[in-house]
Amino acid sequence: MILVNGAATEAVGASDRGLAYGDGVFRTFPVRGGRASAWRLQYLKLAEDCRALDLPCPPEAVLAEEVARASAAQEDSVVKIIVTRGSGERGYEPPRIPRPMRVVIAGLRARHPADPARNGVQICVCRTRVAIQPRLAGIKHLNRLENVLARAEWSDPAVAEGLMLDMDGNVIGGTMTNLFIADASGLATPDLSNCGVAGVTRGRILAAASRNGVDCRIEALSLDRVLAARELVLVNSVIGAWPVRAVAGRSLTPGPEAMRIQSWLAQDDD
Amino acid sequence: MILVNGAATEAVGASDRGLAYGDGVFRTFPVRGGRASAWRLQYLKLAEDCRALDLPCPPEAVLAEEVARASAAQEDSVVKIIVTRGSGERGYEPPRIPRPMRVVIAGLRARHPADPARNGVQICVCRTRVAIQPRLAGIKHLNRLENVLARAEWSDPAVAEGLMLDMDGNVIGGTMTNLFIADASGLATPDLSNCGVAGVTRGRILAAASRNGVDCRIEALSLDRVLAARELVLVNSVIGAWPVRAVAGRSLTPGPEAMRIQSWLAQDDD
Repeated sequence: MILVNGAATEAVGASDRGLAYGDGVFRTFPVRGGRASAWRLQYLKLAEDCRALDLPCPPEAVLAEEVARASAAQEDSVVKIIVTRGSGERGYEPPRIPRPMRVVIAGLRARHPADPARNGVQICVCRTRVAIQPRLAGIKHLNRLENVLARAEWSDPAVAEGLMLDMDGNVIGGTMTNLFIADASGLATPDLSNCGVAGVTRGRILAAASRNGVDCRIEALSLDRVLAARELVLVNSVIGAWPVRAVAGRSLTPGPEAMRIQSWLAQDDD
Repeated sequence: MILVNGAATEAVGASDRGLAYGDGVFRTFPVRGGRASAWRLQYLKLAEDCRALDLPCPPEAVLAEEVARASAAQEDSVVKIIVTRGSGERGYEPPRIPRPMRVVIAGLRARHPADPARNGVQICVCRTRVAIQPRLAGIKHLNRLENVLARAEWSDPAVAEGLMLDMDGNVIGGTMTNLFIADASGLATPDLSNCGVAGVTRGRILAAASRNGVDCRIEALSLDRVLAARELVLVNSVIGAWPVRAVAGRSLTPGPEAMRIQSWLAQDDD
């Protein structure tokens, strides 16, 4: 089911700035039995991303009701919320009094018969680089052509995800996931102050690590370091945490760090 | 008037990848008395940009008919064509058989009572930088948040445009225009191989310069060099060519290069 500004319709305005310029932000998360996973954090991140684009964020209660309504017909949904700056006819200049548009889309959750959370996934390394743009770094905005181009690099269904590097050659994450690595230095995740999306699940893992006294560094990670790591774990709100079992000709064994991250996420899903 | 896939409607699908990811391209140009300015070049650039994103471009005859139909009610329109990869439910992965969506929007042409083509315009220098992304450089794609953020930096209606620099400090152009400068070295325009939009009007001017034996270099232009130039000329398909009369506390006099560019564009509008 799709709701646009609360109304059951699949139609959005052709002059919407979300379509014209990608002038908006989004969230994607599972809803099971009417309960949105980590809802409070999802909303806070949506509000933070709206603020970063100087975009009024719809009230939490409005969105919570629409998420519940859109997903009511399914036991197990993936819900996407899009918030744009609404329609405008005046070129790039944002309207002085923006009337944001919100879209709530509930779809069926994909099944993964191969049990990737336990068995791990095969991934590749993408050629498409992520541009350095500190002004937009971390924000889950609607300008995602780099992710589209990177995802178009492979069509083999055995490959579950692709790593993306930034223009300086540092690994930023997957096309749709954040990355954690475990090596001799401990647990680490890419620094996203120059580009990339700082997802809610990444934030939950960092908070859980801190709460549990586990050191997890946020730092620049070269491809060499990532490919030499003992464990690689890909995370997002929909998949949870997937260990990597194969990348760039190397085999890895899903190990204790992936399990620890999974247990943190299981405990913490408020 | 708005046409979506040829039908008179303002509604596009909420799951369209143009909205979700900015997965598409666009064009904007004037239509006067039923005649689209530089139509053949506009279509060729649209097709080139589609090809760069591996997106099937609608046939020229289909778009030409829709441009004529959408703009028929007005003597003097600005028409925008958007082509997206259509709807998709599978995340970033492009559909194997894409069904592109096309939107043709005809609006009224803005009036500029101050005659900016003759008297010149006041401009500013934006803080928002353009990220370096050779893979997308030159393409007029729908990922335009940088332009939106730059345009949001000023609201004074006396300021007509803002210059944008890339991450290396080179001037790329205006938020909605390409730039030509004239200084002791002659005529030059920014190199757009790393970022920026290589517009049709820029291309027409480069072709006219070449045809007329005028040397016009395509090169990296520092802000210092731009601010010290004898003439600055901002161009796009809708405004034509506007000389700059004030930037960063400096006054310039609209001069012969702006007039020459304007005369080229007037001759060449096939």
